Amino acid sequence: MNTQTRPDAMERIVNLAKRRGLVVPSAEIYDSPGAIYDFGPPGVLLKNNIKAAWWRRFVQGREDVVPIESAVITRREVLAASGHEASFTDPLVECRICHQRFRADEEIPPADHAHDLTEPKSFNLMFKTALGATEEGAALAYLRPETAQGMFTNFRTILDTARMKVPFGMAQIGKSFRNEITTGKWLFRLREFEIAEIEYFVRPGEDEAWFERWVGEWETFFTDLGLAPARLRRFEHPPETLAHYSKRTVDLQYEFPYGWSELAGIANRTDYDLRRHQEFSARDLTYFDEGENRKYHPYVIEPTMGIERAMLAFLVDAYREYPGGRTQRSETRESEAVLHLHPRLAPITAAVLPLVRRERLPEIARQITGELRAVWFVEYDEAGSIGRRYRRHDEIGTPWCITVDSQTQQDGTVTVRDRDSMAQDRVPRQDLREYIGQKLEAGSPTRTDAPAR
Amino acid sequence: MNTQTRPDAMERIVNLAKRRGLVVPSAEIYDSPGAIYDFGPPGVLLKNNIKAAWWRRFVQGREDVVPIESAVITRREVLAASGHEASFTDPLVECRICHQRFRADEEIPPADHAHDLTEPKSFNLMFKTALGATEEGAALAYLRPETAQGMFTNFRTILDTARMKVPFGMAQIGKSFRNEITTGKWLFRLREFEIAEIEYFVRPGEDEAWFERWVGEWETFFTDLGLAPARLRRFEHPPETLAHYSKRTVDLQYEFPYGWSELAGIANRTDYDLRRHQEFSARDLTYFDEGENRKYHPYVIEPTMGIERAMLAFLVDAYREYPGGRTQRSETRESEAVLHLHPRLAPITAAVLPLVRRERLPEIARQITGELRAVWFVEYDEAGSIGRRYRRHDEIGTPWCITVDSQTQQDGTVTVRDRDSMAQDRVPRQDLREYIGQKLEAGSPTRTDAPAR
Repeated sequence: MNTQTRPDAMERIVNLAKRRGLVVPSAEIYDSPGAIYDFGPPGVLLKNNIKAAWWRRFVQGREDVVPIESAVITRREVLAASGHEASFTDPLVECRICHQRFRADEEIPPADHAHDLTEPKSFNLMFKTALGATEEGAALAYLRPETAQGMFTNFRTILDTARMKVPFGMAQIGKSFRNEITTGKWLFRLREFEIAEIEYFVRPGEDEAWFERWVGEWETFFTDLGLAPARLRRFEHPPETLAHYSKRTVDLQYEFPYGWSELAGIANRTDYDLRRHQEFSARDLTYFDEGENRKYHPYVIEPTMGIERAMLAFLVDAYREYPGGRTQRSETRESEAVLHLHPRLAPITAAVLPLVRRERLPEIARQITGELRAVWFVEYDEAGSIGRRYRRHDEIGTPWCITVDSQTQQDGTVTVRDRDSMAQDRVPRQDLREYIGQKLEAGSPTRTDAPAR
Repeated sequence: MNTQTRPDAMERIVNLAKRRGLVVPSAEIYDSPGAIYDFGPPGVLLKNNIKAAWWRRFVQGREDVVPIESAVITRREVLAASGHEASFTDPLVECRICHQRFRADEEIPPADHAHDLTEPKSFNLMFKTALGATEEGAALAYLRPETAQGMFTNFRTILDTARMKVPFGMAQIGKSFRNEITTGKWLFRLREFEIAEIEYFVRPGEDEAWFERWVGEWETFFTDLGLAPARLRRFEHPPETLAHYSKRTVDLQYEFPYGWSELAGIANRTDYDLRRHQEFSARDLTYFDEGENRKYHPYVIEPTMGIERAMLAFLVDAYREYPGGRTQRSETRESEAVLHLHPRLAPITAAVLPLVRRERLPEIARQITGELRAVWFVEYDEAGSIGRRYRRHDEIGTPWCITVDSQTQQDGTVTVRDRDSMAQDRVPRQDLREYIGQKLEAGSPTRTDAPAR
């Protein structure tokens, strides 16, 4: 088992991501803007799998939650009403000597910059743009800093068209944008990122109980997908760090290699947003409760998570390095890296490997690849020794390697090697779909070691 | 069968979309910006199903195509190299009297605006924004007008990490943004929209053959999902309308209610983009072809489609109105609308309806809903007469209505009503998953009428 220090773990994962094309700085061939990333094939697939698991659980799986998709470009009226135009700011200070800028509310600037700083001024984090065909006639608009407002502005539409009754939720996954002053920590704080969030509308007075339930739902999402419970904790925001709309906020914190930090959050937004939009738009955004025979503005519980931040947590949680290799037989005795991702999150569900490049084995392996690709993302791989191919797929988290050998030609069976236990099953080729399907449904990954890193 | 005129059909679909919350103007409670829309539950689900069908066919289903996700915010260097900063423009004219603006290359301005127009000037369609923490230190950036450039700038990364050999493709679905001068026609031309596109890299000299193949692939995508082949045709761009990078472009046109218009396109971008990015970034973007033992810039065939425009075509193609109802027994003899969408595209795969709200039927129906929701988007519906519920689901395109009646309690069977034929099957409850699964796999919808509208 490995003994590396945790900051070192972070660096190794960043290197792995770069080497395998999981995540790369955006438009890297030019001077990449900070905190904006592109995702190569395994990165896209991992992100998609996280989003699909979330969607299946909280949208498709729940009758009380409906999906919505609202626009990124948002007219300023919306974000004036929501309070973002006035309050979505960070305090910015600038070093008078080097002109670097820092957030005054963070531990930085580091000691070597603490010589001559300007007074803090409010810096609004929203990206601006302009809608319309000429400079003078253009209307100021923002790139949304969260997906929530599109759910509040559509509250009436959903009531009228989807016939929902309180308590119910609206759910959205989509891009959001924040012009962060200080970035770094890789995927942790991005200028362009995806949010998965729910606005859950409840009766006033039932908000505190629903808040607790959603904190629990959020925790279970992560632990059911294999995140170590020991690295997850709740952080209760003190009154002075609450957002302008929040009555209570609990962060789920994860123990990242650089320390405990926010992974996801649950906020009690009260009826603040609906009231503000009613005031600014002069539309009726009340709800008529048939049971109570009265109108009110529902309270809103908002569980939210950043997809890239979740991706970062799943990656660091799943990453293990085995100095000297995992088996006595390891050919090179080199260090081996394994991503013990939950099988449903793994970018590639299975790899199909012909043992050798002769005897029609590649042809059979390609057939199997094609059959399984109807259901999952499956890769054909014939390059290098079988051990080398196992290690390549361990490193990117592929749960099952299917090897086609000479016995396959005789009896139609293949071997299926498990990424975590390295155990091999002999499986009839025509049963592969059911074999893998059952293992995916079963869910929890077969971790071979304690969550030490 | 209906006799309505086709422009009328468009208006009816817009009304249906609004009534059922498929598509609504973005942030409608304020003054909604033109050509930006939000999507309610059935709209999100329809979009997701189109994207999933595309992904399954062209990404998951093909070993020669890998997925990628690049950022929306793009530094100007990228779009200077691609030629968009100089050439992604439309000619804009303004009426000196009313100050309305028009595209000089379109049939508008209408007659009542043709009095006093300015000379055409070039208007760049890209939305601008600024990256960075102060006004003076900010870097100009654009919201990408297409997803393509993110694939070219990552060409080297994909070669190095995904070990692809020419011919191969990179695929991406993502938001793109264009500050259009003239909008209208609902979902046809949007300022914010999603593109699904592939950049397919081939040997120079093999580009023309690959171009033809991709035109065929693109057509088959639409017709396999039920679009009437008689409403689809190819349009060959004459040299004067080719984009600055294109050697040849073919549009797939669809006969929309307002006439034939672009649905999707295939362009031969040659080696223009890779050469330009190599020149501007000073990075080597050549490909070493082992078979030919030489380096070159691959040619690029780009099949592309807008998701909302595809959605519009699928909607208008699937929409039928039946004056007086579809059956002799129709209770009200009112006109009935049906969306004959391909079952895999339908927002709601099945509705589960208790015949009456007693005898534990609602409870059983909810159980079935929950079971099926593990796999598909399924809705429970108990509101109104059974005929009314059938019509509500016909209108939104739900292929199967599952009715739970008193016989269900006796023998465990339910009825499954087909949206198109209105035929009813009696199916054991525990076979529902297989029954629906097989029909979805079988694919082609059971249209009951000719593609007349």
